[in-house]
Amino acid sequence: MTAEDTAAPARRGRPGYDRQQVLEVAVRLFNEQGYDATSVSDLAGELGVTKSALYHHFDSKSAILEVALDDALSGLESALDDAVRSHSDASAQLRALVRGAVGVLTARQSRVTLLLRVRGNSDVEQSALRRRREFDQRVAAIVRAAQAEGMIRADIDAAVATRLIFGMINSLVEWYRPGGPVDPDELADDVLRATFDGLQA
Amino acid sequence: MTAEDTAAPARRGRPGYDRQQVLEVAVRLFNEQGYDATSVSDLAGELGVTKSALYHHFDSKSAILEVALDDALSGLESALDDAVRSHSDASAQLRALVRGAVGVLTARQSRVTLLLRVRGNSDVEQSALRRRREFDQRVAAIVRAAQAEGMIRADIDAAVATRLIFGMINSLVEWYRPGGPVDPDELADDVLRATFDGLQA
Repeated sequence: MTAEDTAAPARRGRPGYDRQQVLEVAVRLFNEQGYDATSVSDLAGELGVTKSALYHHFDSKSAILEVALDDALSGLESALDDAVRSHSDASAQLRALVRGAVGVLTARQSRVTLLLRVRGNSDVEQSALRRRREFDQRVAAIVRAAQAEGMIRADIDAAVATRLIFGMINSLVEWYRPGGPVDPDELADDVLRATFDGLQA
Repeated sequence: MTAEDTAAPARRGRPGYDRQQVLEVAVRLFNEQGYDATSVSDLAGELGVTKSALYHHFDSKSAILEVALDDALSGLESALDDAVRSHSDASAQLRALVRGAVGVLTARQSRVTLLLRVRGNSDVEQSALRRRREFDQRVAAIVRAAQAEGMIRADIDAAVATRLIFGMINSLVEWYRPGGPVDPDELADDVLRATFDGLQA
């Protein structure tokens, strides 16, 4: 009897995990015990399926990582594209981006957590790090433009300010709990207040 | 070989690592490849010493972790104690703590990095998580007191504000480089400006 048999009857005598469910479980395991320390056998064991059933969905462990990281990065990149498209002044773009990024982090928490732990140990990880750097550079350019507009304080270097803002945003993955007492929209308001207006009364 | 031997060259034809140097290398390896994935053999190999030479300094891998985590936690707890002792109003305590915590993170970066990755997989890790929680609760109480003083905005929950401030501070371990272009004191100024005054011009 496999895990899936308990929820819904399997149709071909095989557990009925779809690609998305395999991805969810894999990302959870990667986050819990580390990507490098997790084998395809661990994953198959956790899902209660054979390794060949897993290979039906993904060619390799690395392919799972690639899809998960792409999901996190695409979310952040879309938030940035939307912010730029929706606003003409840089300060408003930055505010929209902060709100959008908090939304991505709370909605895709496990995949963003995985992204934030990537250290560049493989081509897939190197590629994800490159996309993160490009994202950071685009954001820093917006911060710089907002400084030129006189809307963001110029006494903090734009690259440092970008890192501080995203340091605060990214830290949400450590403690935010979906369905918990903190509402994601209110959290975005809090982050906007803290970063733009400051905590001083 | 004992810690006291360290300042002087090894006298018995063995590599002259002292306890502190073993700790440094171990923490670097733990951060690079994960604590659970690092064996005492890996560590001995990295140092070019035998396992028994290592056991002369530390009883176990877990003992190394315990010392490293205690170093990070003691630094943060001392920063908090100093801040409370040096200032009577909560808002000034909070500012002093932010400055002190940035100092600890930049000075003990590798050990704080290790602390931030602890997930509670052993008694040593559980104990470190408990101390982190106690620290967070003491900081949240100061934030709450500063709100009561009218110095910190009250429209953000004190526990959330504490997490946002320390989210920003803790993120420094990801990118700060000792001896790099960013001076630790200026960085503390930037973090204080960003968290208290906000980025808005």
